[in-house]
Amino acid sequence: MPASQLPFSAQEYKRRLEKTRRAMEEKGIDVLFVEDPSNMAWLTGYDGWSFYVHQGVVVFHDEEPVWWGRAQDGNGADRTVYMGEDRVLRYPENFVQSTVRHPMQHLAGFLRDKGFSGKRIGVELENYYFSAKAYLVLKEELPDATFVDATALVNWQRAVKSDEEIAYMRRAARISEKVIHGIVERVEPGMRKNALVAEIFRDAIRGTEGWGDYAAIVPLLPSGSDAAAPHLTWDGRPFEKGEATFFEIAGCYRRYHAPISRTVFLGQPPQHMLDAVKAVVEGVDAGLEAARAGNRAGQVAEALYAALEKAGIKREGRCGYPIGLSYPPDWGERTISFRPEDETILEPGMTFHFMPGLWMADWGLEITESILIKENGPAEALCNLPRELIVKN
Amino acid sequence: MPASQLPFSAQEYKRRLEKTRRAMEEKGIDVLFVEDPSNMAWLTGYDGWSFYVHQGVVVFHDEEPVWWGRAQDGNGADRTVYMGEDRVLRYPENFVQSTVRHPMQHLAGFLRDKGFSGKRIGVELENYYFSAKAYLVLKEELPDATFVDATALVNWQRAVKSDEEIAYMRRAARISEKVIHGIVERVEPGMRKNALVAEIFRDAIRGTEGWGDYAAIVPLLPSGSDAAAPHLTWDGRPFEKGEATFFEIAGCYRRYHAPISRTVFLGQPPQHMLDAVKAVVEGVDAGLEAARAGNRAGQVAEALYAALEKAGIKREGRCGYPIGLSYPPDWGERTISFRPEDETILEPGMTFHFMPGLWMADWGLEITESILIKENGPAEALCNLPRELIVKN
Repeated sequence: MPASQLPFSAQEYKRRLEKTRRAMEEKGIDVLFVEDPSNMAWLTGYDGWSFYVHQGVVVFHDEEPVWWGRAQDGNGADRTVYMGEDRVLRYPENFVQSTVRHPMQHLAGFLRDKGFSGKRIGVELENYYFSAKAYLVLKEELPDATFVDATALVNWQRAVKSDEEIAYMRRAARISEKVIHGIVERVEPGMRKNALVAEIFRDAIRGTEGWGDYAAIVPLLPSGSDAAAPHLTWDGRPFEKGEATFFEIAGCYRRYHAPISRTVFLGQPPQHMLDAVKAVVEGVDAGLEAARAGNRAGQVAEALYAALEKAGIKREGRCGYPIGLSYPPDWGERTISFRPEDETILEPGMTFHFMPGLWMADWGLEITESILIKENGPAEALCNLPRELIVKN
Repeated sequence: MPASQLPFSAQEYKRRLEKTRRAMEEKGIDVLFVEDPSNMAWLTGYDGWSFYVHQGVVVFHDEEPVWWGRAQDGNGADRTVYMGEDRVLRYPENFVQSTVRHPMQHLAGFLRDKGFSGKRIGVELENYYFSAKAYLVLKEELPDATFVDATALVNWQRAVKSDEEIAYMRRAARISEKVIHGIVERVEPGMRKNALVAEIFRDAIRGTEGWGDYAAIVPLLPSGSDAAAPHLTWDGRPFEKGEATFFEIAGCYRRYHAPISRTVFLGQPPQHMLDAVKAVVEGVDAGLEAARAGNRAGQVAEALYAALEKAGIKREGRCGYPIGLSYPPDWGERTISFRPEDETILEPGMTFHFMPGLWMADWGLEITESILIKENGPAEALCNLPRELIVKN
């Protein structure tokens, strides 16, 4: 595609490729097949809702990557990847969701032709789009190859963001702010949930400077007792007085996300919720202080959990994950976790959704931040929104 | 959850379960693990955007199904599945996207405890959410079990829709009509694409009677030369005079879809496009005539391709797929295909997206229909929209 329309400079794609090749070398991988759409986009610029069929990017040590996918999606690759059209390889349409053919037979043929039959081939074993069947077919077609688990190999290269990436995330954060402001302005008892979600989507996609992209997760907004369940979506029932609703949303710009949650109470919140809010806000402050270059990822969780424990709230599991470029079904990068056991050292340019959600037996609360690890000092919250329970009385 | 809020009656879930058990028996499957979120919802009612972590439904021959998933999503299961809370099994949060633990270790423990160590276990090998790693871990944990490929086993049970399901699809079709009307009314040269997409989402989620759900695929709307690429999404560039844009969208109600595409030309369409439109419309008419109970699925494709060939247009691949209940990334059911080689016999109550899209070297055209196979006569188009190129001059 024309360089002027690519989301990043040629230098940036070159830097990403070299970083990936070094990681391949460390694992002794001769050729890498990447099916994760976020990794495909990060490496080549490829963009399109075509990940419901098998496709991928093949990364070599000594030649430019090859985009590989369905014939009709080759036209989309020609229009979005930085490589030339000679690096776009199409498999015939009769491989698509066939009960008698599998696209991996085609990919295996290509790898064989390139001389990788007996080599070490990296594949993303734990990924939404590389199915168990895909692995079994590749293995059967290339019996002399050694398959190396390259799960999250590229995801790890994405952890530290470039200035250009951070600029996109800041644009996404402006959209997130706009969406939250729109929610607070509109939500009221009697309004149907779907009517509010309609406005959330409208605000997010209209965007602020330029335009808005679709987020990798739809808005989540459970109310009252349902807020115990973090991943419910919406229906046509109305918001009710006396209930809290948390809104977990993300602005998205050119596939870069800035997720955030705020909780709105319609009416007079009960004391136990006000106490929890105080503890969570103190916990977020403590977590931001701990989220410094040089610290362990686990320290952020420890700081939050200590603050919550002082208020008598036991919180386990993880409370944050890396964010950036993503496609459905997840806007997380699936590498680092903010959980006490995670020993990863934080570096400047890393970005996370710091996510101290509380999902109790019959209520829930989310006040979260998208954060950036800085050279010095505590992490920066990308969105500029008051960190509080929003009460509409 | 309260029966009053379940999308379907207890009788309907019972019927689905029995149908699935018969299919298990035919394949000699002792216990079935279903990770496909559409299959999970169809079997139990489970609904939530939690499919980015491992979860599933375990189907037995002699007891009620078990929902299995992440601890915090158990709260969502309690609120959406028809079974009692004793049939909701949660794995601890420290299994989530961990680099040292895998949720399938937990599932294997459960299957072992239930006495399935040496039995025949059905798994969906070709599925977005059952990863290669999930399969390898299950196999390692249950070395004496025999794993049977149950890809699309449940999907096939979903092919013929009940009257209740068709009623939901008709509601979705009303939403699809509303979205297309909104597009035609608003699109004009100079309008930014994202501004129109914002209104598409708003119309779709506001819905018509009741409310609108999110579709499993975002709106696709490539213009001009980009319409050669069927799966491009949008950006902030304006619509231009002299260009065709196809709009592929779906209204969605309670996860049931009615996809449809229409193409809008801004200005005076060239003769080659008018000729193609005539051929496609004749092809759709011929396809609807062929889409009758008792005919092969392949006959629909043959009827379309014959009509196109008369106009000198060579079309290959498939031109339709089953639709109904779906979650991202695909609103198709991945069973039957409208392609000449498909021998499946059409039955009353089957529903398809009949999809005669043309993606040429530098232009594209889509005029499609969601259709229902009837007891007698040709298929019924679920949306009531003129089958034509929409010209705005």
